[in-house]
This record gives sequence, structure tokens and C-alpha cells, in this order.
Amino acid sequence: MTASGLSRRGLIASAGAGAAVALAGAGAMAATGRAQAAADAEPLLHTVPFHGDRQAGITTAAQDRLHFAAFDLLASATRDDLVGLLQDWTAAAARMTQGLGAGPVGPLTGNYDAPPDDTGEAIGLDPANLTITFGFGPTLFRDAAGTDRFGLAGRQPAALTRLPHFPGDALVASASDGDLCVQACSDDPQVAVHAIRNLTRIAFGRAAIRWSQLGFGRTSSTARDQVTPRNLFGFKDGTASLRAEDTAGIDAHVWTAPSGNPGTAWLDGGSYLVARKIAMHIETWDRGSLREQEQIIGRTKAEGAPLSGGGEFTAADFGLAGRGGAPLIDPHSHLAMAHPDQNHGVQLLRRGYNYVDGSNQLGRLSAGLFFIAFVTDPTTHYIPMQTALAANDLLSEYLQHVGSGLWAVPPGVREGQFVGQALFT
Amino acid sequence: MTASGLSRRGLIASAGAGAAVALAGAGAMAATGRAQAAADAEPLLHTVPFHGDRQAGITTAAQDRLHFAAFDLLASATRDDLVGLLQDWTAAAARMTQGLGAGPVGPLTGNYDAPPDDTGEAIGLDPANLTITFGFGPTLFRDAAGTDRFGLAGRQPAALTRLPHFPGDALVASASDGDLCVQACSDDPQVAVHAIRNLTRIAFGRAAIRWSQLGFGRTSSTARDQVTPRNLFGFKDGTASLRAEDTAGIDAHVWTAPSGNPGTAWLDGGSYLVARKIAMHIETWDRGSLREQEQIIGRTKAEGAPLSGGGEFTAADFGLAGRGGAPLIDPHSHLAMAHPDQNHGVQLLRRGYNYVDGSNQLGRLSAGLFFIAFVTDPTTHYIPMQTALAANDLLSEYLQHVGSGLWAVPPGVREGQFVGQALFT
Repeated sequence: MTASGLSRRGLIASAGAGAAVALAGAGAMAATGRAQAAADAEPLLHTVPFHGDRQAGITTAAQDRLHFAAFDLLASATRDDLVGLLQDWTAAAARMTQGLGAGPVGPLTGNYDAPPDDTGEAIGLDPANLTITFGFGPTLFRDAAGTDRFGLAGRQPAALTRLPHFPGDALVASASDGDLCVQACSDDPQVAVHAIRNLTRIAFGRAAIRWSQLGFGRTSSTARDQVTPRNLFGFKDGTASLRAEDTAGIDAHVWTAPSGNPGTAWLDGGSYLVARKIAMHIETWDRGSLREQEQIIGRTKAEGAPLSGGGEFTAADFGLAGRGGAPLIDPHSHLAMAHPDQNHGVQLLRRGYNYVDGSNQLGRLSAGLFFIAFVTDPTTHYIPMQTALAANDLLSEYLQHVGSGLWAVPPGVREGQFVGQALFT
Repeated sequence: MTASGLSRRGLIASAGAGAAVALAGAGAMAATGRAQAAADAEPLLHTVPFHGDRQAGITTAAQDRLHFAAFDLLASATRDDLVGLLQDWTAAAARMTQGLGAGPVGPLTGNYDAPPDDTGEAIGLDPANLTITFGFGPTLFRDAAGTDRFGLAGRQPAALTRLPHFPGDALVASASDGDLCVQACSDDPQVAVHAIRNLTRIAFGRAAIRWSQLGFGRTSSTARDQVTPRNLFGFKDGTASLRAEDTAGIDAHVWTAPSGNPGTAWLDGGSYLVARKIAMHIETWDRGSLREQEQIIGRTKAEGAPLSGGGEFTAADFGLAGRGGAPLIDPHSHLAMAHPDQNHGVQLLRRGYNYVDGSNQLGRLSAGLFFIAFVTDPTTHYIPMQTALAANDLLSEYLQHVGSGLWAVPPGVREGQFVGQALFT
């Protein structure tokens, strides 16, 4: 086999899969050590830089598909194991996001009698803007019994605690919490699955998956030129979500501020990842009238415009009254309840995904929204809003939060460093 | 909102999602009754015709994503309910596959005080080659207790019985069987989910989902110009699968032959759909050497070439011996065991998908292959082969079949008819 052979197949594969362009076979490149891509006719890899001041996968234009995983360290794992895992994960993520194999050799190992250091299902696939984003959960610092397993208790930021129980929560352990989280996003689901699968393999003997979640369609836009997608209620979602181009908004609402505390300075310039698995009662929703659905959301279904008028991005006018004097936008609509005006100016950078996990025993689809938001501080930017929404949002009747997690997301990784390195120094 | 407004957004949305081209807003088209697409600059809907001699989704070039669902009729359902359901499903499938809403009005109903007759999450999306394929299970003719609920017992083809228990099977009811099945395939997963969700809604009061399965990546090619994809063992899958261009092979191995029996003639020119949910022990597999992996499969991992030499599509030479006299292709390799030479010349048209259903309580990914094959007769074309594979295929050690189903797939639907209509006349 030659690398150019793989490359040509990759070209055809990507075209068949509906991707715009194609690439050289990443595994073959790693195995042969030659950058064959340059020798091919216009191969283009869709890659997002891994190294930088911030981790990728936060303000990166939201990719179409998600594989999210929460990991727990094994009971036997030491601080050295944790550091080694983060070093290994960093190296693998730096490679995979650039279209290379998970390990230095790749899926087609030079040693025929050893297991390959990449599992191979992404051979020939474009990374399709793969990003891999890491977070540290509260239990990494102090476990449920309060034990400081890794000598990190003194480094735990005050805001990094388990999210409170909100009214209506029906959380299950198999979709909640975890010592570590990894968010893999790509426009090709096979690439995202490959990333989580190989990181899981690398973690063997040190950490294991606690739970994981696939998302098939993005429900947020994080760049201004992305069209607003629709959630499983059929409405546009994330219209008011922060966009990467709003750098002042991102600075104010996404990145952590300097803590002024040497113990927690490792998180300066990072963020917090809030994940909520929100089951949607779609069968009930589907029986509501269009009028009722729009009243609950506060926007039109077609355009996503506020019921006070205009287009999707027109500012809502909460004072505008209709016939009979009632406000056109119900004050308990989702739009009103989640609006910055009702939440001390808080804005969220959302990166959620629609999910379907088969069906339940009632013959209903187990479907909903896997909500992800990156926030500067969960105590100001998520907890108060969700407390209000859970109590008064008209939409709550159609939702059930079944999973929950909060992780601190360290700042970006520079060449030669590993993710979260400042936490261990 | 104007239809052209939706159309422009659709254009951007599709480009952002990596699709090659875009479309007019299907919901808007339905709501306004105007074929706005024609008025836009080069909008292209990727549609597969619904009507024809055969159902679409069999020899159609395999799409990238799958949502498969098995349904059971409710205990209260009558023969008229069943006929009505098939009529309604046929009409909805004919519309959705052409980019229209599930119902005649669409997601943006003219009656503001009624529920929309489409759930809306596919507004503005290209159908992306959506096909919807229907099958009838053995329990539709005679339920588990032997009861002929719908007066169809006399019309049951002899081959349409529950698949036998194969060695190693660990089947669960929540992934097996069902009175009816629906296979929705599209290059956009949101479109496939939308189709199943709306058919489920239409079935309300007559049938409910028994189980459903998402597949994120195709593992088969059904057209010659499709690149062979990789399964979660990292190997190319379906190299030897039948392709649509081999019309003689398709005629011999896929379509049912005339039964010569008026009672079962309704299935003439149809097919049988075999579904098997195959969990893969990927963690165990990943610890095998490349040599061992290739021996088990019988092909190289890089190219997918038989170990007897050549390229992916070179014929295997099972007699060719290597050093020491042992055959280069192990006679118990998957290639050898599944080869037509070992199976009375049988070939399969495969349309399987990789799946990941989160993770299990051991911290392992619940992952594998959702196998689908369309065969002329399961008693000649699947059961003997799987009996041999289950007993002797080296690959069996890494697999566990957890779901199983067999459905008769009626021939295609002509305009004005409904799927399976000949069964009821």
C-alpha cells in the first residue's frame, strides 16, 4: 500500500460522504513518515489548531456532531497516573485533531506483532474540524467521601462544586458528573467516535468511561455565519447565544477572570463547562397547537422571531402589548425567562446537540437536547438562570433534566505542555 | 417569513454542515403551496424517488446515517387500523422523501390553533437522499401466542419466521423483532430522525415503537463508486457486498422470486430484511496485534486486500500457501467463512451501520455494528451462513449478537397505492 493510494481513496470517500473536500490518509502519513498530502492534487484537511491560549472547541464554530465522555479515575490511580494520563491525552489529541493517528505510529503499526496504537476506523477520513476539549470535575479535587486523592484539594476553585438540585431534576448517575470530561466535536461522527474511543483506550488502567453521549445535530451556532439550527421541538435554538465574533461578550461571559489566588490561578483564562442532559417530552409537545408552542417559546416557529415582531435577530420588546393588553411575549416564555434582561445581563456560549438514545419502554423516543454551555462562573452564569427557569419557564413542563455535570476547563495548551499542567506545579 | 428567505438560510445551513449543495425550505414550500425552489439560484434537493417497482433504500446508494425503528401494533388495533396506518405512512413517506412535510399542511400549519402536522425540526434541511423502507414481521401474521389478529395468517410466507437461535446469541427483546419495521436512511441524521419521529407520531393510537436504533456511519457500499467504509474494528467492511450495478446478482440474491402461490404473491418482487445488532468487544480487539487482527479478518487492515495478495477487490486465493505450507488466508477467517465459495454461492446486499449507544457499567463503549442485509430468502441466504459463522468464524470471539429481526419487504409502491397493499386484497 502506498500513501498516495490511501489518499485517493480518501478523496472519493469524502466526496461520497458529502464533505466538501478530502485529504491524505492520516494513518499512512504517520506510518510512512512522509507528508504525502503535499504531493496530491489539492488535498485539504479541515483542521482546527490544537495549541493556543485557549482550548479549541469553545469558540470554534460549532461542528455538526458530538461524542462527549465523562471519565472516572480508577481507585488505584495515583497522582502520577493522572499526570501521565493528561500528558498522553494531550499528545493524542494534538495528533488526532491534525488528522494523524492517536499514537506516534498510527493504525498501521510498523511492528506487525504489536497492537496498533490507533484503532483505524478513521483511516482516510478528514478530521472535519475535530476539536477535543478537556475538563476537570469537582471529584478530581475531593471525591464524594471528601478524600483528596491526588493532593489537589487546595487547588479547587470555589465555583467548582456539584451543581445544585434544581426543581424537577430527575438525575441519573449514568449521565451525571465525572472526574474528567472530554468533548469531541467534528463534522464527521466517525471521527468524533474515533477520538473518544482512542482516548478511552489510552486511559486503560488509569481511568474508565463513566458515561458518554452522542449528539447527532448541533443546536447552537458559535459563529455569526452559522445558520441557527433547530431542536427537536422544531424551533430554532441558540439564536441569542454568544458568537465568537463578539469578543467583548466572550471575554465577559466565557473566560474565567484572574482569581488573584495562586492556588487556583491554574484556571485563569479557562472556562467552566456546564452539561445538562435534557429529555424532551416530544410526544406531548407534538400535540400542542402552533399558537401554544409559540407562546411557550416566545418566538415564531417559522422564523424564530420574537412574538413582539421583526426577524430572528430583532430585539425582543417585552413591553409590547397585544389585543386585550397582555404582552405579546409571555413573561414566562422561554425567551423571556432566559433573556439577559431577566438574568442580570448574563449571556451563555452554548454548544448543545440533539440526541436520540433509541426508545423507552413506553414506545417513545428517548430524545432531547444535550445542553453544553461554557461560562465564566457557574454561580453567576448558570445556577441563577436555571433556578428561575426550572421554577417558572413555561417550557419546563415539556422537559426533564436527567443528567448534569460541571467541569473546570483549563486554558489552552502550548507546544510541549500538557492540558492542565499548571494545576500540578 | 417568505419561502425564499428560508431557502437562503437553507443554502447557508447546508454549506455549514459540509453538504455539497442546498435547497429550498421544504416546510415553507408546503405551507405556501409554491415551488419556491425553482425561483432560487440553483437550489438542489437531493431526493430519491419514493414510487417505483421496488422500495427505495435497498439498492439505493447507501446513505451515511440511519434511524431504524421496529413497531408493534397496539392490542386494540384492528385490521382497518393496520391498513389505515400503512396508508398514512405511505403518504407521509412519499412527502418526506421529496423534502415536504410529513402531513399535507407541513410544520407551519395554516390553522394556528391546531397542532402542526409536521414536527418542524427538518424545516430548511435538504432530504439528503432520504429513503424510508417498510417491512412486515412474522408477528404481524401470527403473534407470539399464535393468534391471527389481522386475518393475515394465510398470507404468511414460509420463510417469514423468527430467525433461529444461533450459537452465542445473547438477544434482548429491546433490540429484537417487531410487527413492522421502518428503515430511514439519509446523509443528514436530523432528517432520518425527523422521519422516524413523524411516522411514530402518525402511528399514535395504532402502533408504538418497540425499539429503535441510530447508526452514525455506514459500513457498506451498495454502489460501485462508493468507497468501502470502515467498521469499528478499523477494517474495511462490505468489500464483497453486492452492488446495485450487478443487476444479475441483485436479481438472484435480493428480490424474492415469484412464489407461485396466490396467498403469498403479495411479496413477489420484494425482499427480506435481516437486522442483527452486533455488539463488538472493541477493547479486547484493540489489544490484539495487527498480525492477529489481519489473520482473523483474512484481509490487510490498510488496503483491505485478501492475505493471498493483490488489492481490495482482488479475488481471494484460498489455496495459496505461505511459508510452512499453511494457507495465507486462514480457513476460519471472516473472509473465508463468509465467502460465497463457502456458502453455496450466496451473496448479500448489506446496508449496515456503526453504532455507539453510550457506554456500559464496565466503562466500555456500547458499540458495534447494526447489520442489515436484504436477501431473496433468509433460509438460503442468511441462516446457513450465520450458523457457520457463529460456530467457526475466528471473529466470533469479538462479537455478541444482541438484537435480531426479520421482516418481509413488499415490492415498491405505485402512485395511489400504499405499501403492502396487495397483502390486503
